[in-house]
Amino acid sequence: MEYPSKLQQAVDSFSKLPGVGPKSAMRYVMSLINWKTTELQLFGESIKNLSEIKYCEECGLFSDEAICEICSNQQRWEDKTLCVVERITDCMAIEQSDTYRGVYHILGGVLNPLMGVGPQELKLDNFFKRIEQKKIESVILAINPSVEGDATCSYIKHELPSDIRVERIGFGIPIGGNLEYLDAMTISKALENRQAL
Amino acid sequence: MEYPSKLQQAVDSFSKLPGVGPKSAMRYVMSLINWKTTELQLFGESIKNLSEIKYCEECGLFSDEAICEICSNQQRWEDKTLCVVERITDCMAIEQSDTYRGVYHILGGVLNPLMGVGPQELKLDNFFKRIEQKKIESVILAINPSVEGDATCSYIKHELPSDIRVERIGFGIPIGGNLEYLDAMTISKALENRQAL
Repeated sequence: MEYPSKLQQAVDSFSKLPGVGPKSAMRYVMSLINWKTTELQLFGESIKNLSEIKYCEECGLFSDEAICEICSNQQRWEDKTLCVVERITDCMAIEQSDTYRGVYHILGGVLNPLMGVGPQELKLDNFFKRIEQKKIESVILAINPSVEGDATCSYIKHELPSDIRVERIGFGIPIGGNLEYLDAMTISKALENRQAL
Repeated sequence: MEYPSKLQQAVDSFSKLPGVGPKSAMRYVMSLINWKTTELQLFGESIKNLSEIKYCEECGLFSDEAICEICSNQQRWEDKTLCVVERITDCMAIEQSDTYRGVYHILGGVLNPLMGVGPQELKLDNFFKRIEQKKIESVILAINPSVEGDATCSYIKHELPSDIRVERIGFGIPIGGNLEYLDAMTISKALENRQAL
């Protein structure tokens, strides 16, 4: 007894999602077959529509227009500060923290020569062009801490004109974190970054 | 900054899957936006196609024909044994164990008066009709152990003619299980069901 091909096809597609194995995929599909036809149509259509999502030509964020609502908001440019992130999700996370009011630039990854990701593969050309055109004075590197992230920060710092202030977001103990369970590297960074009270 | 509506729609649909919250749904969708258009089309179409899956008119298993390959296989009827399960997935699990060679009947659930599931809501009419028409001599109740499952088994046993042998699958320690970590109910059932060596 085999599963119908229509069902197997859906299981195969679900299995390609991150962290979803064949068992979870089957569980999802088994729940889906009890959904109403209209709900299935909506779900299927919403997945197909994902290919139509457009991105801002400037920063790379989601946008229905050529330029996104952040880049086209003049107030966002007043600080002359640009925040560099790896991925759209990082940018959304910063926006949700509601502390940064400048503009963004999404690199689309970090330098990783072993995986064939060099400066050409990242949106760096456009980045340096924006810095110059928009007369940016300060760059915040909100790039995740990793060997590749560190190398990317060094590269950007090196390539930027020396009159631009370049800063990297602070590393330390996350709020709600516990020294006992944190790795040595985080604790060492937290000690380095201690602040006077 | 809000997520584009197309993206939000997909996140909402994913969130309705069992065990998927908004964070996992967002993770899936963020991975999907990097998929090729053709792959997204295929995934979307496979979900829409789930509404077209057909079921056997006799037992309720998946089937492209009116009668599934198990019910239409004469060898499967030779034992005159019918195995009753709650859901299609239970039936597939039994098939994968490759030990049972009779036919199935999928109830579509168990009796649960508090949730409004009475005998009418289950495929019981068809079940008693099949027992009579096909001259079934033995019924195996492969219904999961729970208060509702037990009640369903009692109901079926009570409604069946007394000359039909009714058995329930055995309860005990699962293979690879460990007494130390099993619940008291399972251990008590395992002691009850002990067998001479």
